[in-house]
Amino acid sequence: MLSDKETSVEDLRNAVREFIHERDWEQYHNPKDLAQGICIEAAELLQLFQWTKSEDSRKVKTDPSKFKRVGEELADVVIYCLSMANALEVDLTKAVLEKLKLNKKRYPANLYRGKAHLDHQEE
Amino acid sequence: MLSDKETSVEDLRNAVREFIHERDWEQYHNPKDLAQGICIEAAELLQLFQWTKSEDSRKVKTDPSKFKRVGEELADVVIYCLSMANALEVDLTKAVLEKLKLNKKRYPANLYRGKAHLDHQEE
Amino acid sequence: MLSDKETSVEDLRNAVREFIHERDWEQYHNPKDLAQGICIEAAELLQLFQWTKSEDSRKVKTDPSKFKRVGEELADVVIYCLSMANALEVDLTKAVLEKLKLNKKRYPANLYRGKAHLDHQEE
Amino acid sequence: MLSDKETSVEDLRNAVREFIHERDWEQYHNPKDLAQGICIEAAELLQLFQWTKSEDSRKVKTDPSKFKRVGEELADVVIYCLSMANALEVDLTKAVLEKLKLNKKRYPANLYRGKAHLDHQEE
Repeated sequence: MLSDKETSVEDLRNAVREFIHERDWEQYHNPKDLAQGICIEAAELLQLFQWTKSEDSRKVKTDPSKFKRVGEELADVVIYCLSMANALEVDLTKAVLEKLKLNKKRYPANLYRGKAHLDHQEE
Repeated sequence: MLSDKETSVEDLRNAVREFIHERDWEQYHNPKDLAQGICIEAAELLQLFQWTKSEDSRKVKTDPSKFKRVGEELADVVIYCLSMANALEVDLTKAVLEKLKLNKKRYPANLYRGKAHLDHQEE
Repeated sequence: MLSDKETSVEDLRNAVREFIHERDWEQYHNPKDLAQGICIEAAELLQLFQWTKSEDSRKVKTDPSKFKRVGEELADVVIYCLSMANALEVDLTKAVLEKLKLNKKRYPANLYRGKAHLDHQEE
Repeated sequence: MLSDKETSVEDLRNAVREFIHERDWEQYHNPKDLAQGICIEAAELLQLFQWTKSEDSRKVKTDPSKFKRVGEELADVVIYCLSMANALEVDLTKAVLEKLKLNKKRYPANLYRGKAHLDHQEE
């Protein structure tokens, strides 16, 4: 099976696009409902870590059945993100690299090294 | 600037990984807090479509300033998803393709063509 | 059974407090995990309206089985909110009335009558 | 100012109902958009605890400025829940007490005392 190494972001977008097209679901894929879908799937992913201490959540790697579910829920979020990119014709690579560039300015490595980006998160 | 066409999913993961590593933020990147981050950013994306009718939300493409914000918020969600994949060493391509395969079985194209996948969403 | 008319907010908080105390669950009820619980239950409520047009979502009142589920999911969100108020000893009535007072200043009725509070939502 | 002790749930619902009515905002308050509002405000509440360890989040009580923000964000979630109850004419007291009754059956106190209700959360 294909892996992240040899798969372009476009290839992954196309796999999702094809799945949606085969079902004629583009009509439902307006940005509002897709954003809702992302939210709902994100909450399902979060639920897998409910009542777990933050540090202990790393142990999910040693629990194969839970790890599998995490992978599936993460995939659900990513699939909706790819659908949003398809519906709006947003280039994800460009969007991500531009945002990282912005974040590099906001959080200079020498000032923020080892410091939680709490201030950022609350903005 | 690089685009989805010539960028592998691994390249994009590496760009995020490098940003985090330069700031020594891996210590904060446990799965629970990353899942929280995805949720929070997903809600910020959703907020851009609050009180908008679903169909009207497609018009965001004709509003350059709002469209830019949508791209930025979507990038924030994707960046956290890539961080989660990095923290847990999940191959996103495999996870997405496996999930699509599962969904193809659950929603055979001939049965679900043009039908909202409502039942699925409520499961 | 008791109703909103003759039940004080404190009575409702006490009903939740008692349920938690009987199970010795106060130890899990830190603000972070309670906020997560609110998020997760809110997303489950939202999921009931996924792919539905905003206006059509009002029709849920004529669908007894779905209406029941909406009531249950809304109750889940409210129960976590009451637990958060209990855990932090926040007076909800005061918090709500203060916030409404603030909102009355931000959205003077004569300026915002019949206008979606879009600007507010995006702040 | 009024407090939880002497305020009925109906009184609190009426305060929100009046605020909405003065602005003629009932037209926007369909269940789907209200559920979205709850989600968005819940995520803003959660954001206040991002990167904080669960146990440390209890310390918010000793940080007056942050504690104030938590109260405001919690109020926002509750206000939307009261609006949802108003829009759908759901009696919150009945909904909460019925849900607690159900939860008492699902989590008998003698079996779940001191045990995280993890299993429940993942259902």
